[in-house]
Amino acid sequence: MSIVLTENHYGKSRVRLVKVERHGDRHHLTDLNIDIQLRGDFAASYEQGDNRLVLPTDTMKNTVYTLARREPIEQIEEFGLRLADHFISRNAQVSAARIWISQAGWERIAVGGRAHDHAFIQGGAERRTAVVDRGRSSVKVRSGISDLIVLKTTGSGFSGFVRDEYTTLRETQERIFGTAVKADWSYRGDENSYGTYWSAVRSAILETFAGHESLGVQHTLYAIGEAVLDRVEAIEDVHIAMPNRHCLLVDLAPFGMENPNEVFLPIDEPHGLIEATMRRG
Amino acid sequence: MSIVLTENHYGKSRVRLVKVERHGDRHHLTDLNIDIQLRGDFAASYEQGDNRLVLPTDTMKNTVYTLARREPIEQIEEFGLRLADHFISRNAQVSAARIWISQAGWERIAVGGRAHDHAFIQGGAERRTAVVDRGRSSVKVRSGISDLIVLKTTGSGFSGFVRDEYTTLRETQERIFGTAVKADWSYRGDENSYGTYWSAVRSAILETFAGHESLGVQHTLYAIGEAVLDRVEAIEDVHIAMPNRHCLLVDLAPFGMENPNEVFLPIDEPHGLIEATMRRG
Amino acid sequence: MSIVLTENHYGKSRVRLVKVERHGDRHHLTDLNIDIQLRGDFAASYEQGDNRLVLPTDTMKNTVYTLARREPIEQIEEFGLRLADHFISRNAQVSAARIWISQAGWERIAVGGRAHDHAFIQGGAERRTAVVDRGRSSVKVRSGISDLIVLKTTGSGFSGFVRDEYTTLRETQERIFGTAVKADWSYRGDENSYGTYWSAVRSAILETFAGHESLGVQHTLYAIGEAVLDRVEAIEDVHIAMPNRHCLLVDLAPFGMENPNEVFLPIDEPHGLIEATMRRG
Amino acid sequence: MSIVLTENHYGKSRVRLVKVERHGDRHHLTDLNIDIQLRGDFAASYEQGDNRLVLPTDTMKNTVYTLARREPIEQIEEFGLRLADHFISRNAQVSAARIWISQAGWERIAVGGRAHDHAFIQGGAERRTAVVDRGRSSVKVRSGISDLIVLKTTGSGFSGFVRDEYTTLRETQERIFGTAVKADWSYRGDENSYGTYWSAVRSAILETFAGHESLGVQHTLYAIGEAVLDRVEAIEDVHIAMPNRHCLLVDLAPFGMENPNEVFLPIDEPHGLIEATMRRG
Repeated sequence: MSIVLTENHYGKSRVRLVKVERHGDRHHLTDLNIDIQLRGDFAASYEQGDNRLVLPTDTMKNTVYTLARREPIEQIEEFGLRLADHFISRNAQVSAARIWISQAGWERIAVGGRAHDHAFIQGGAERRTAVVDRGRSSVKVRSGISDLIVLKTTGSGFSGFVRDEYTTLRETQERIFGTAVKADWSYRGDENSYGTYWSAVRSAILETFAGHESLGVQHTLYAIGEAVLDRVEAIEDVHIAMPNRHCLLVDLAPFGMENPNEVFLPIDEPHGLIEATMRRG
Repeated sequence: MSIVLTENHYGKSRVRLVKVERHGDRHHLTDLNIDIQLRGDFAASYEQGDNRLVLPTDTMKNTVYTLARREPIEQIEEFGLRLADHFISRNAQVSAARIWISQAGWERIAVGGRAHDHAFIQGGAERRTAVVDRGRSSVKVRSGISDLIVLKTTGSGFSGFVRDEYTTLRETQERIFGTAVKADWSYRGDENSYGTYWSAVRSAILETFAGHESLGVQHTLYAIGEAVLDRVEAIEDVHIAMPNRHCLLVDLAPFGMENPNEVFLPIDEPHGLIEATMRRG
Repeated sequence: MSIVLTENHYGKSRVRLVKVERHGDRHHLTDLNIDIQLRGDFAASYEQGDNRLVLPTDTMKNTVYTLARREPIEQIEEFGLRLADHFISRNAQVSAARIWISQAGWERIAVGGRAHDHAFIQGGAERRTAVVDRGRSSVKVRSGISDLIVLKTTGSGFSGFVRDEYTTLRETQERIFGTAVKADWSYRGDENSYGTYWSAVRSAILETFAGHESLGVQHTLYAIGEAVLDRVEAIEDVHIAMPNRHCLLVDLAPFGMENPNEVFLPIDEPHGLIEATMRRG
Repeated sequence: MSIVLTENHYGKSRVRLVKVERHGDRHHLTDLNIDIQLRGDFAASYEQGDNRLVLPTDTMKNTVYTLARREPIEQIEEFGLRLADHFISRNAQVSAARIWISQAGWERIAVGGRAHDHAFIQGGAERRTAVVDRGRSSVKVRSGISDLIVLKTTGSGFSGFVRDEYTTLRETQERIFGTAVKADWSYRGDENSYGTYWSAVRSAILETFAGHESLGVQHTLYAIGEAVLDRVEAIEDVHIAMPNRHCLLVDLAPFGMENPNEVFLPIDEPHGLIEATMRRG
């Protein structure tokens, strides 16, 4: 039997890194989770167990820490590019490197109304993300935000949908809309203001979600994408995924009570999942 | 063989509830997870499968939603007391009811500098908790906070400890101190300002953590307990648990580099775990 | 303000350990997760940050690995006792040591009908557990099993229960009964056949669960406890906890179909939780 | 600003289903988790909130239960095909349907040496999976297995790899090799013996893992793929992913002890991750 190895890659996942940068008494904290994936001339390691071209994943991990020490980490996109460049430039057998970075959000603790110099509180599940795809003659950067958990108690309905013999859902002009927004975007050109854009995207998401008169998750998702592209000219396209974290209205009729959109049962499963990618026309 | 049923209880766990209370356009959002546990005259259900005194856990769940609808939920301690009273007063076979409530934190989304009327963002892993223990002639309330994740990058050391032949830890005047504070407390008398106390305790924890010159986790835990008892006179005792979420200094010497407390590897396991209860003397 | 430290303890949690013991080509694999907790004369570490009596949790971890290397680990109860003895006997300031051990189940991979010498497959979520409580002049051992996930499709009903105005549950002679059994037990005297008893308890649980005509979770839980005490004379008492992992019968009437106990929606929350302790009379 | 909706899809995730099929006293248990995703003419729902072509995700869920009731579920691939066909054939606006199904493994409890008729125990984290991709004129089925957790204590080394200034890993002829195999495969033609192939693939994975003299994870992954393609002629290609769940040898030298591959610290993060796709040449 003849076998063809059609695709392969390998790397290190969940490399965790905390870096402290000190500017006098003011400390800056960076908390990252990094995945590295390399493609290239690795067939011999699969086919014959010949590891002569294999850079150990342990070495990838060491490289992360060394590069983190050498220069400041200001933006995760830049750190991802630096890592990808390192693996590409130092290893002729590597044709492409993909780096994922996910950053936890830490806020300064407020003491007496002032943001503390060196004490931090974790500000939620929300993460800043980056994916760098570096080939021998190409590079792509996608920035992102994930686990941005939001909910609105009005301004959301769902009606006019397809009905068939399996329909039991009732039309509603008034429901709770809860979701965990995940968005990621690419850029029209070379950039270095990733952090500024990230904050602008985050505000666009939150403000659009809050203010939009939603006729459905798709409708609000599109409005968010539109706001992102409208507010941040540097962005080429944006992909958004929004689960519909249903809050079911509890039926209190058996107990002789109405339930005018007051008491809900939130469920994790099943959930709707809506996705789309938008770009400038 | 003769068997004695020495202890038993049963109930419903993970009853989830979202309630929306509307004051004109201003909506209030309450997001709870509730556990109920009853003790009493239930031996026959175990021994003979005789369920005549068994209140189904499904009915407990229905009761939660009905009571949630009937009156405002202002403080989880009050809602827990109302639930416990219901089960005790309506079921002669119940000798004691325990209610746990855990509340998620939702903050209003800021739009144009103003807190939005009906759109919310989840503010972190942090939860407000309450445990109500109600007997036929007794009641105890413990309020709490959990998953308050904090980290400081200086102002923490650990030295002067026991050394034996299994010691490899180095003494240090300077380390990262990361933890997830869990605290719960009881009251000296009947109270109804639970929310005010909760905010005061939260501030006491954060400010003490930030400002304390820590000689060890125990040392800071005690300082936090002292601050809680000092600031909130209504509190009788406070129990605090603090895991030591270690950040290991990465050894960069093999790569010819120093690492002056800059690059760390955070680990989840193993972790130290420090606990204590303190009360007024 | 005067503060009293009413209770304190500390230790190391989630110390993970894999040990390979070789008997010629036949390898034995032990996979443990260990928590250690010490009580004693530690007030000064809390009150003044004086660590002179504090055994670092890092040293506890090193001790685990050293003791694991020194002698075979045959039964987790014995290893727990050895660890507890070590901390008590070597540290005068320690008044009590508690050790939890949880062991993952690995089975030998079958190759050509034979159990392989050194290749293993993980056999489920099920774990063997032990808790050792060692004081200066006392010792208690509890063995246990957890996460034993079982389900039966008939032989289970629930009826004759309390009805009130919050009741919507229907009586049933036929329902799915799914649970994750957790049990732990103490011994009447000094023992060393822990593994044999563990297997006997596991069989007692599984066979009783399968064969019992259940009138409720309480009823089956009691029958299981009775079987455990009946089959294993060495056991003094047994505590059992069984969540009721509900499978809801899906209402297909809106689609013109009956659903004669065929199609169910399993849910994780909310769930009933039933517990009891039984001992010989 | 002009916006282009470049891609979109939506559906229902985590639809859970338990089905009991009765053949006399012998019950069969099927426990599934299902995700549904539709593509098609949905732009209006995004752009204008016009839901006239939107099949609600709630209806998708109802459809799952109805179809599950109507016919036996023998193989998840067939049930996936039936679901995909339903959505495509009944909704002209749908251009493609993707169905994921993941099945939990339940084994019959052994009582007195016989497999019980209606009582089951969950047999591990391992799952059987299927993905069906159905277009208007195309259909693809991939079967799979996931979370097959295995470990071998010898017969595994890693040496001869690239060394650079970031290398600290030592070459070894003897290490623990632990992983959680994930594999999925397509077929050369129309099939209906999915279950038979699944069992053959599972055996090929386990036996190859056990017997292979591994020179690296890549090497063993390839050998597994080769065995799968060799044993099951119906399979066209196979994709395999294997994390390297490292067990670190604990350094006991500080305590004056050798550690001849006996005592290990297993870690979850970081971990290597190796992937490849193989097909017949």
